[in-house]
Amino acid sequence: MSELSNKPSRTQPIVFKDPVHDYIHVDDRLILQLIDSKEFQRLRRIKQLGTSQYTFHGAEHSRFSHSLGVYELTRLITDRFARYYAHQWDSQEQFVALCAALLHDIGHGPFSHTFEKIFKTDHEAITQQIILNPATQVHHILQHAGEDFPAQVASVIAKTYPNPQVVQLISSQMDADRMDYLLRDAYFTGVSYGNFDLSRILRVIRPYTQGIAFSYAGMHAVEDYVVSRYQMYMQVYFHPVSRGMEVTLDRLLTRAKDLYLAGQLDILPPFLEPFFDNHYTLHDYLALDDAVLITAIGLFCQSKDTILSTLAQMFYNRKPLKSVEFDGKNQTEIVEKLRHLVEKAGYPLQYFTQINRSSDLSYDYSLKGQSPIILMNPDDSLVELSTASPIVKILSDHLHGNQRLYVPAEFLSTSADIPFDVQVLRQQFLKHIHNGHII
Amino acid sequence: MSELSNKPSRTQPIVFKDPVHDYIHVDDRLILQLIDSKEFQRLRRIKQLGTSQYTFHGAEHSRFSHSLGVYELTRLITDRFARYYAHQWDSQEQFVALCAALLHDIGHGPFSHTFEKIFKTDHEAITQQIILNPATQVHHILQHAGEDFPAQVASVIAKTYPNPQVVQLISSQMDADRMDYLLRDAYFTGVSYGNFDLSRILRVIRPYTQGIAFSYAGMHAVEDYVVSRYQMYMQVYFHPVSRGMEVTLDRLLTRAKDLYLAGQLDILPPFLEPFFDNHYTLHDYLALDDAVLITAIGLFCQSKDTILSTLAQMFYNRKPLKSVEFDGKNQTEIVEKLRHLVEKAGYPLQYFTQINRSSDLSYDYSLKGQSPIILMNPDDSLVELSTASPIVKILSDHLHGNQRLYVPAEFLSTSADIPFDVQVLRQQFLKHIHNGHII
Amino acid sequence: MSELSNKPSRTQPIVFKDPVHDYIHVDDRLILQLIDSKEFQRLRRIKQLGTSQYTFHGAEHSRFSHSLGVYELTRLITDRFARYYAHQWDSQEQFVALCAALLHDIGHGPFSHTFEKIFKTDHEAITQQIILNPATQVHHILQHAGEDFPAQVASVIAKTYPNPQVVQLISSQMDADRMDYLLRDAYFTGVSYGNFDLSRILRVIRPYTQGIAFSYAGMHAVEDYVVSRYQMYMQVYFHPVSRGMEVTLDRLLTRAKDLYLAGQLDILPPFLEPFFDNHYTLHDYLALDDAVLITAIGLFCQSKDTILSTLAQMFYNRKPLKSVEFDGKNQTEIVEKLRHLVEKAGYPLQYFTQINRSSDLSYDYSLKGQSPIILMNPDDSLVELSTASPIVKILSDHLHGNQRLYVPAEFLSTSADIPFDVQVLRQQFLKHIHNGHII
Amino acid sequence: MSELSNKPSRTQPIVFKDPVHDYIHVDDRLILQLIDSKEFQRLRRIKQLGTSQYTFHGAEHSRFSHSLGVYELTRLITDRFARYYAHQWDSQEQFVALCAALLHDIGHGPFSHTFEKIFKTDHEAITQQIILNPATQVHHILQHAGEDFPAQVASVIAKTYPNPQVVQLISSQMDADRMDYLLRDAYFTGVSYGNFDLSRILRVIRPYTQGIAFSYAGMHAVEDYVVSRYQMYMQVYFHPVSRGMEVTLDRLLTRAKDLYLAGQLDILPPFLEPFFDNHYTLHDYLALDDAVLITAIGLFCQSKDTILSTLAQMFYNRKPLKSVEFDGKNQTEIVEKLRHLVEKAGYPLQYFTQINRSSDLSYDYSLKGQSPIILMNPDDSLVELSTASPIVKILSDHLHGNQRLYVPAEFLSTSADIPFDVQVLRQQFLKHIHNGHII
Repeated sequence: MSELSNKPSRTQPIVFKDPVHDYIHVDDRLILQLIDSKEFQRLRRIKQLGTSQYTFHGAEHSRFSHSLGVYELTRLITDRFARYYAHQWDSQEQFVALCAALLHDIGHGPFSHTFEKIFKTDHEAITQQIILNPATQVHHILQHAGEDFPAQVASVIAKTYPNPQVVQLISSQMDADRMDYLLRDAYFTGVSYGNFDLSRILRVIRPYTQGIAFSYAGMHAVEDYVVSRYQMYMQVYFHPVSRGMEVTLDRLLTRAKDLYLAGQLDILPPFLEPFFDNHYTLHDYLALDDAVLITAIGLFCQSKDTILSTLAQMFYNRKPLKSVEFDGKNQTEIVEKLRHLVEKAGYPLQYFTQINRSSDLSYDYSLKGQSPIILMNPDDSLVELSTASPIVKILSDHLHGNQRLYVPAEFLSTSADIPFDVQVLRQQFLKHIHNGHII
Repeated sequence: MSELSNKPSRTQPIVFKDPVHDYIHVDDRLILQLIDSKEFQRLRRIKQLGTSQYTFHGAEHSRFSHSLGVYELTRLITDRFARYYAHQWDSQEQFVALCAALLHDIGHGPFSHTFEKIFKTDHEAITQQIILNPATQVHHILQHAGEDFPAQVASVIAKTYPNPQVVQLISSQMDADRMDYLLRDAYFTGVSYGNFDLSRILRVIRPYTQGIAFSYAGMHAVEDYVVSRYQMYMQVYFHPVSRGMEVTLDRLLTRAKDLYLAGQLDILPPFLEPFFDNHYTLHDYLALDDAVLITAIGLFCQSKDTILSTLAQMFYNRKPLKSVEFDGKNQTEIVEKLRHLVEKAGYPLQYFTQINRSSDLSYDYSLKGQSPIILMNPDDSLVELSTASPIVKILSDHLHGNQRLYVPAEFLSTSADIPFDVQVLRQQFLKHIHNGHII
Repeated sequence: MSELSNKPSRTQPIVFKDPVHDYIHVDDRLILQLIDSKEFQRLRRIKQLGTSQYTFHGAEHSRFSHSLGVYELTRLITDRFARYYAHQWDSQEQFVALCAALLHDIGHGPFSHTFEKIFKTDHEAITQQIILNPATQVHHILQHAGEDFPAQVASVIAKTYPNPQVVQLISSQMDADRMDYLLRDAYFTGVSYGNFDLSRILRVIRPYTQGIAFSYAGMHAVEDYVVSRYQMYMQVYFHPVSRGMEVTLDRLLTRAKDLYLAGQLDILPPFLEPFFDNHYTLHDYLALDDAVLITAIGLFCQSKDTILSTLAQMFYNRKPLKSVEFDGKNQTEIVEKLRHLVEKAGYPLQYFTQINRSSDLSYDYSLKGQSPIILMNPDDSLVELSTASPIVKILSDHLHGNQRLYVPAEFLSTSADIPFDVQVLRQQFLKHIHNGHII
Repeated sequence: MSELSNKPSRTQPIVFKDPVHDYIHVDDRLILQLIDSKEFQRLRRIKQLGTSQYTFHGAEHSRFSHSLGVYELTRLITDRFARYYAHQWDSQEQFVALCAALLHDIGHGPFSHTFEKIFKTDHEAITQQIILNPATQVHHILQHAGEDFPAQVASVIAKTYPNPQVVQLISSQMDADRMDYLLRDAYFTGVSYGNFDLSRILRVIRPYTQGIAFSYAGMHAVEDYVVSRYQMYMQVYFHPVSRGMEVTLDRLLTRAKDLYLAGQLDILPPFLEPFFDNHYTLHDYLALDDAVLITAIGLFCQSKDTILSTLAQMFYNRKPLKSVEFDGKNQTEIVEKLRHLVEKAGYPLQYFTQINRSSDLSYDYSLKGQSPIILMNPDDSLVELSTASPIVKILSDHLHGNQRLYVPAEFLSTSADIPFDVQVLRQQFLKHIHNGHII
């Protein structure tokens, strides 16, 4: 065997066993250090799907595993770009893409959506702060790749990075983020609808001057991804019970904050005060996680304020507010009437009822800041997906989602053992409900 | 269609989407109430695999989903018993079996093994208390099935229930508990070794006078289950890094307790005091969960006691003690020598080193209190599994597991940036290590 | 255990291991005899997907396994009907439904579509003949269930059976046949698009007076099935290479028949003569299978007729005619021009070129004889699927498919080593082709 | 993007969709030509598992798909060797390994084992002939890689190729052949036992001077492969019904040959004569496939020789001889007695009874010509697998398999409608049978 190489062979990558992608492969020492940083390890303590776990009990996975998955998909895609499209992809861009992929969610907090609304935090801004702030381990590690490198990674998150290929890999209608979360959420919920043909997508994705495109031959695989995304929204992300838990959390945090501002909050859980009085630092924010919030709610269950302790127990023991659907445009009057029936039963209106709107475009070719999905013909001419697929056109033309009124459960069940006067109010309430809709 | 039935049709069961068993089916109102009880909902806040999640990032599933799975398997098995073995199975036993299956883990606390060791709690005893204590919702619900019913369910857990079939369904070498956790842990870790042919097992499992047996025709399927279990122990449950996190947790809680008892603990996290001074009630215990413990460790990171804060940060940021294997019988002397090298580097011996033994019999036909696996011939004669399968015999004859010495990571790595005197000690340390073993 | 039943327990069903449904369960002795009949065993020798195996090499499964699958799905559905909808489903209908499900494809011959076209056979009529003809084992077995029973089973196939529920189970837009073949073809091709949420569909399917409906709550699962079906047509069933093999087979059989009728066929393979001279009996038909046809083609490879032996070798060694797409309405003239270029190169027009149209409505709510998909609201009112789902509406409004011109491969490749004059003709040919389409 | 490469990018590989490995990737034009050769296309017409399809109806896959799978695994392994072990693996060996992998089964005929026994053919010798014979397309294509190249490929098959790494990749206790067939047979039968952790195996397989080894860290994955193989033999390959079909085929071909040699065969099916009189050429052999043999059996069903037509119908309609197990060493006398009871019922002994032995070592570290499985320690020292794994030791020490006597079905069933004198003989027969064993 005289032909043996004298070159030192490559070292095998470090791997992390992953139920979705089999293994996550890490070749680079800096990537490994980022994963080991305390800001990234914190993502283990933040669940990916917030309150969806209360409907789909398998959905207990964290943003840690999702972030590894987005990194792995970005690695697979950019490895292919370097191999097959070297004339259109600068392989020196891979590292900044991998770092941005890994860190794109690092600013998320517990139950992000609800928490942000009430405490005016912004996870995208915080993601950039964590990357840019010299006090973080993440920043320190990134600097080893160049003084300016943290700013470059942050600019990918901010979508101001000059190379649109890198930006679109991390953030577009069909990016590594969405591809991972569909597959991952499908796996952990056990709902098969989120599955699509990833290996086919990987074979047809390709770079071009203005960003990322897909060979026309893969049109039906891309179309199938769009339909999968639509199905996951319909069946998982918009589920009324998960939204009921979110509404309940929203109301209980609002009550706690109102009490705090009025100087009447009798229990102050660890780590939360900076957010009640709106004077938090990045350090304060990084101390937040699901455990802190759950422990706080456990403590609130013991508050002497009945509204707070009731709402806290409802969340803690999974007894959320329940809902009926209504027509957003023409039913505001009847909705207000129903809310007042609830109030008559002794439930303060602002804490025990809420309107919740879910809406999302499965695919929107016009939405600002979100690059559309582009198909490339054999002769390199481009086609926007919805002009080639009537199914995608339909999904992008219609806003899918609905509006629901949330109220205490006893107004929507027949079995609860409740006082006679509330029974009377419930009867009035139910007269306006048919097949789960307000009429 | 003149033959349409006049009997009212059965109502379809309530279902919970489950990634392992597809759906969990609940036909009975009391079972639904048990699931909705606050003691059962608490299991959502306790992870099934404790520190394994730090090695297998997908393993973030809770005891809640496992308990539903054990219930579902028990339902499937007892439905078959009623259908095909009515002469050997009393179908009135199904309900007590289902309740015991659902509740068998309800007494578990956070990171049970470690917590129990330090605070002298006992999850099996507490499981029975929760069932028997009139203050719990679980007890209240069970009582609707009969004044004596809670005691019956508790006796299944205690293995004193008169019908051995019911006891063995919940607790034997091949029970619904083990079958669910192997499949579930395989699914969430992504490690395929835990899979076995459940549908075949369900077709060969059967009741007999003394308990549960398996038709001889299914011998190879049962053998495969035993091998799967062995593989999961080897590859997942005994993983050195997960045990390193456990050892680190053990040491940090010990330090906190030691400080408390000495009156020197500067931070007292919510809900933990009753355990430090060993005066806890069932109510105190039920307030414990992973969130409470994680939040406590987050607070301990800020302690002024350097030992406590160092250990807390090691756990919080996943920087566990690391380990080498050794031969338990003949190497106690050299192990002690190595521990003293660590101490010389300034690490208090009792908090920064620990010996950890993992051991388990994949299948033990003699182990007290654990019923062996019995095969039934076509002529109803019985055979103990290990006499029919040489593979199982080998696995039951050998104790699989090992012993490891855990020390600070810098003693086992070459890259850490450490002071010169520690480097010298490390060199002495490493002279005794070859291929990950103490020599 | 005083409550043990005195009733004899049920016997466990006979099972067949199936990769799609795990096990096929047979409780009834007559069903087992039907499976063992020689007419049913013949289905082992007929592949389910004809020429698709030449594109998707895994697709080598037979109509035998598909027929077992349709039986199993019908069994699962009607078991549920009996359990949950006894007031709307006559459980005495189960047996006729099971027999029709099992036997629905029993009249299929080798490469049905092509064979039927050339030899004027009709598999649906033959299916009924096999059931009705006293000489078959199938008929003999069915008669044990009643003198009139074969006629009842045949009438389900003919859609004249009085109970529309039974007819729609076997033959409608969403019947057991289609559900099995989508899942099965997806499994064996390895193309995931055919998968849909069968367990959810089984939970929402239900009988009503006029046939089969689906609970409205399952709308998205049904919608997903329709999209899956569309994807399988686009990606598998309409694949141009499979159609190329079909076209090649069509031309070679046509040539053999033409030679036979002209008294010039030099090789007469076993079992085929009755079809060449159009005087076949049911007995002759049942002797046909893939093996007979493949062996015939192997023999034709040695014919002295160059056209026949060339076409036979093309099929035998998988060198099919190749194709370009064209616009059916406006390009007949140019298509004729291209065919004549082929003829100039020495290829007889009628044997070496062919136009092939693929078309299918994924879901058609108006198509005669095919019941539409009906959703049932909580208040039992009915909705046709496409009025509830914009995606389904789009799929049912558009005819999906295309038209292709098939010609010898050398006209569409650049690499073949061909004579100069053919090269000139090819250049003229290719001037009319752009991106795989005729322009 | 000034860093775009000037090198032409690589072309994407041609892919074949595969249900086991997702895609088969072909980068090399010669490999594609080999796949397109008529000798390789013939493998589409030969089933991988012979008579197993009559027990596991999904097992209808061909040697064509298996051969592609062996090629793909060899490609994956040698790509890794080139990447990570360039100092121990000569990457110029990849092409000969790929060709040998693809072609290793090309000499197989229909129902190889049985056919070879009766007609004295040898598929391994024929594989080499096909590669070496200048008349084949395969030889012609291989020659493009060098005059001597066909001989090199043939020598890999013959295990005389000088580089043991290449030989062991294709033929050893843990080669690409076995790895593919276990996974593929598991997939198509639907029997999960054949699955093992391929991706882990691929990460620990490595070349060394004397051949192929596995990193010690992968010991449990390798162990699991050995157990999977054992389970597939126990549950699939040795299944008594499949062997019954094989025995029936063996007897029917023997009868046909006996009649031919006696000049009494009334039906001579196409393509078989050269084998009856033992004067066949390679060209004759390549005309054989499953279709030819099945068609022959279909014709034999009509023979006037009752023995031949009875046996042919038994095979054609899946009514095989049935069996009882016996102890090979001590029961020859009683077996002979039982055979004579069958003969008394009118069944010629040599055609209607047969003894069949199945035996195989799941793993044998001594078997000549089959390289054992070698583990490599971190310090590069070597360990033979069975010394490291007690499970493997047990499996290699015990010969697993059994011996069965096959007789007409009516001797082993109680339901058949048979004459009184046969009933008496059967009663005598059954007195010697208990629990499926001869006693």
